[in-house]
This record gives sequence, C-alpha cells and structure tokens, in this order.
Amino acid sequence: MIERLAIVGVGLIGGSLARALRAAGAVGEIIGCGRSVENLELAVDLGVIDGCTRDPAVAVEDADLVFIAVPLGVMRGIFERIQGRLRDDAVITDGGSVKGSVIRDAAAAFGAVPSRLVPGHPIAGTEHSGVGASFPELYHNRQVILTPLPHTDADAVAKVRAMWQAAGAQVTDMDVAHHDALLAASSHLPHMLAYGLVDLLARQQDNDEIFRYAAGGFRDFTRIASSNPVMWRDICIANAEALSAMLASFGEEIADLAKTIRRRDGDDLLAIFTRAKAARDAYVDGVAASGAAGVRGESS
Amino acid sequence: MIERLAIVGVGLIGGSLARALRAAGAVGEIIGCGRSVENLELAVDLGVIDGCTRDPAVAVEDADLVFIAVPLGVMRGIFERIQGRLRDDAVITDGGSVKGSVIRDAAAAFGAVPSRLVPGHPIAGTEHSGVGASFPELYHNRQVILTPLPHTDADAVAKVRAMWQAAGAQVTDMDVAHHDALLAASSHLPHMLAYGLVDLLARQQDNDEIFRYAAGGFRDFTRIASSNPVMWRDICIANAEALSAMLASFGEEIADLAKTIRRRDGDDLLAIFTRAKAARDAYVDGVAASGAAGVRGESS
Repeated sequence: MIERLAIVGVGLIGGSLARALRAAGAVGEIIGCGRSVENLELAVDLGVIDGCTRDPAVAVEDADLVFIAVPLGVMRGIFERIQGRLRDDAVITDGGSVKGSVIRDAAAAFGAVPSRLVPGHPIAGTEHSGVGASFPELYHNRQVILTPLPHTDADAVAKVRAMWQAAGAQVTDMDVAHHDALLAASSHLPHMLAYGLVDLLARQQDNDEIFRYAAGGFRDFTRIASSNPVMWRDICIANAEALSAMLASFGEEIADLAKTIRRRDGDDLLAIFTRAKAARDAYVDGVAASGAAGVRGESS
Repeated sequence: MIERLAIVGVGLIGGSLARALRAAGAVGEIIGCGRSVENLELAVDLGVIDGCTRDPAVAVEDADLVFIAVPLGVMRGIFERIQGRLRDDAVITDGGSVKGSVIRDAAAAFGAVPSRLVPGHPIAGTEHSGVGASFPELYHNRQVILTPLPHTDADAVAKVRAMWQAAGAQVTDMDVAHHDALLAASSHLPHMLAYGLVDLLARQQDNDEIFRYAAGGFRDFTRIASSNPVMWRDICIANAEALSAMLASFGEEIADLAKTIRRRDGDDLLAIFTRAKAARDAYVDGVAASGAAGVRGESS
C-alpha cells in the first residue's frame, strides 16, 4: 500500500498509473505535479489526482513514493528540484524509456545515485499524450522493466515492483545497458523508421497523392509517427549510442534488400519475406497467448 | 450489370469482389478459377462463387467480364492460357499491385495489349490470404486505380469502373508509370521496411527477448510483415526500378537521421519528428473525413 504518491508529470503514463492504482485500491493520496495548470486541473476534475502543484519540491513532501514521468530531457532538472526535499524513506522511480541517461542524471543531481531510486520503464503507451488520454487498463498484462543498480535498496525495488503489479503489469529486472540496447531494437528503431518514412514521403513533390492512395496498412504502419516529438527527441539523445548502432544495422539490411530487388532474386526475396512473416506471426501468437492484446499504440 | 463474371484467383481480393458484387446485385453468375481445389470448394460452400474450375481457359468461356487476381509472377501464364478462349466482347481486368509488368505480360502473351484489357489496382487488402479471409466491405470507400492505355476501349473502361463502383470503391484513372512510382512510395516501400525490420530483429542473438519486450506499437508497425510472401516477392520483381529508387532515398533519410542523432542535434530531431507527426495526423484526418476508415491491414 502506498500512502502518499507524488506523480511528477501527469500525462498518459503518470495519469494511467494513478487511475490503475486507484482502481486497485493500492494508494491513499495522489499529488500531481506538472507545468501545465490546465492539464493538472483536468487531472483533478477527472479524479485522477487528489491535489496538484507546479513545484516538484512541494509535490514530493511527505510522499512515500515518487513517480517521475517526464520527457528524458527534463529528468535531471526534476531530480535537482526534489533533491533534499524528500522523506528519508521515500522511494523514487521513473517511467523513462532509456535507463542509462536517467542514472547519469541522478548521479549528477544527487551527487551519487540514491539507493532508494529504482529506475523503471513501463513498456506501454499510445500515440496520444496528456492526462485526457490516460486510462486505468494501460498496464494490464504489459511488461515493466526495472533496472536497479547493485547498491539499490531491496525494499525500494520490492515497493516499486508491488506498485506495478497492482497496476496489472508483469515486472522484470534487467541490466541497464541491456535494457537500452533491447529497447533501441524493439522500440526506438521502429519509431525512427516510421518518422523517417512519413518525413520522406511528406517531402516528395506529389505527397498529397501518396497519402491519398495509401491503404489501411499505411495507417497502422505509421501510427507511431504520431507520437510526441519532444519525448522522442529526448529518447534519441538519451540513447544515441545504441540507437545509432541499430540504425546502421538497419541501413545495411535495406541496402542488401535493395540489391536483392535490383538483381530480381526471387528466391532470396521469398526467403526473407517468409522468415519475417514467420517471426511476426509467432510474435503475434506469443502476444495473444500471454494475454497482452496490445491493441493500443505506441511502444516507448 | 455483369452477366457472367470469371474470377481467376479466388482469394482475399477476388473473393471480396465477388461478395461485394453479389451483395450489390450487380452480377449474374460467378465462375471461380484457382489452383487449390480446397480453396475453390470453400468458395462454393461460402456462396462466393457459383461454380469453379482449375482451368482458366474453361473459366473465361462465355464470360463478359474476367477479373484476374493472382500474384504478378503468374499473370503472364494466365494471359497465355485464356488467349483465344475469350468472347469477342469480353472485358479483362486485373488486381495487380504493379501495372507496368501486367501490361508487358499482356503484350507478350497476346502479341499486343488487347484493347479490352483494363489494367486496374484496388488499393485494399489485409494481411490475411484466401477466400476465407474475404468480406464484402473490403472495397467500401477504398480507392481503385485504373491505368488504361491510349488505345484501350472506352466501353471496357466504363464497364470496369462501374464494377468497382458497385463494390463501393472510388475509381480514378492514372498513367501507368505514375501509378507504379506512387505505389512504390505509399505501399511497396513501407512493406519492405516492415519485412526488413522484422527480419533484422529475428536475426539478432536476443531476438526472443526483443519480441517479448515489444509493445503494442510494434504489433501495428509490423502487421504488414505478415503479408503473403509470394505476392510481395512478385511485386518487388515487377516494380524493381521504382522500388529500388525509393529504397535508396529511404537509405539516405536514415543515414541522415543517424548522423543527426549521433551529433545529438535536438533542434533538428524535433523539427523532423514534428513535421512527420503533422503529416501523419493530417493523413489520418483526411482518411477519416473521406469516410475510408482503413481499419484493416495491408496496402498493396
């Protein structure tokens, strides 16, 4: 049970966690913090949070659990604001899509990474933003990865794990660098391809026509290009090394594919497409079997 | 009104057209032709077709309209089989995703492109195949592009246009090369990116883990990688020139993006993602406004 939860960043991610914990009866009071008064007032009106403030230092006062769900680029600033204002036993966690940068930011802001900071990443989201897009089922059967350091408090990890489980998620621990490489492949690369494709097509002379004659598959394929640009700018910068490496690998894949097409090598093309279809069908079957329907949008 | 429709290839595309025309009362008898007896018998059982044969030459006898919906790689063989077996006034059309290759195949098989051949392309589909996946609403509010040649019979074009309109589609005429370049951008390139991504990830050492921690966005993004590999092998070969050019452009886009990420240029990244999001959101709004919900899968 969480007595007093401070959520810094009451958007899709923070708002959905609040709604889920409330629905599960797993939280007492929830204080929300954000820059937009309008969004905070909406969150109060919707019953997502009990009270609000624009000052992170005020939000975390007396909180036993602090969840930070802001774009990675402002993470360090938030850490600096709450530093010295936390309860001694307060546990801090976050929802950032890159974990190495969060740990570097914490080390810089706090002097060292606090033993009660549990870096975390809920693998869930949609292409929509703001508390108005939040809903309590967002984390049902979704994966949450925690990346505690060797010195991280075991009690703090247990508390964060219990929070996500109460929200309906499955929780796994993972090494920081491994998380960042894994997500570069499964999430950050696909987002770059979707953004890159739409940007390329939008810059074509006959872009109106291209979009007009795009079919249903295009809508699904490009859904993630409707994601929050600020959030993705920050993810790219925070995970620049791992993501650059994946983009380079993908560049080689595409160059090879172009060569195979140019030499009209039907056997090779059929082998590639058959292999990819089998992998994708197995992935979908796996998702269905695990009960994580994944009907809503964005991975992050 | 179509008296006797011969559908060569009773799969998702051919079967859905049959169902739509039947529902609209726009057709008398429908004869289906295909290689799989099992699929043909299913089509008869489902009431999609009235009769069936495995021989295209038999299927087209007495037909006033012939619709060929087979992978592009077997198009020429079908033309060769029906050549000399058609009614004098029979109109032929097809559903191939590339039009230049269909015209080349027709010229080779018939000696010259028949004046009553109207090359066509319904921009609709899902990632599923076979008559069992067909449904009468597939073409509702979807675009169909016809690419008649200068010598194509106006009556033949009118008959094919009326057929697609009866199925609920919007019909546009277009130049052959323009069609093939447009579809290389809006459909063939996205399919290559989806296949390429899934293939790349499936070949990674930790591919199980990558797929396990992929979120809902990944499912949508890769849906088109579950499409029919034979159909896509043939599309790649048939549209090799235009598709290679698009792949080269995309390779440059991705190389530029990787450079921007490596130098951590937040302003540039934000500009790219904001531009792409605006284009994609406008596309979705446009689709919604036109009534083409595009809720089902594959563009082709």
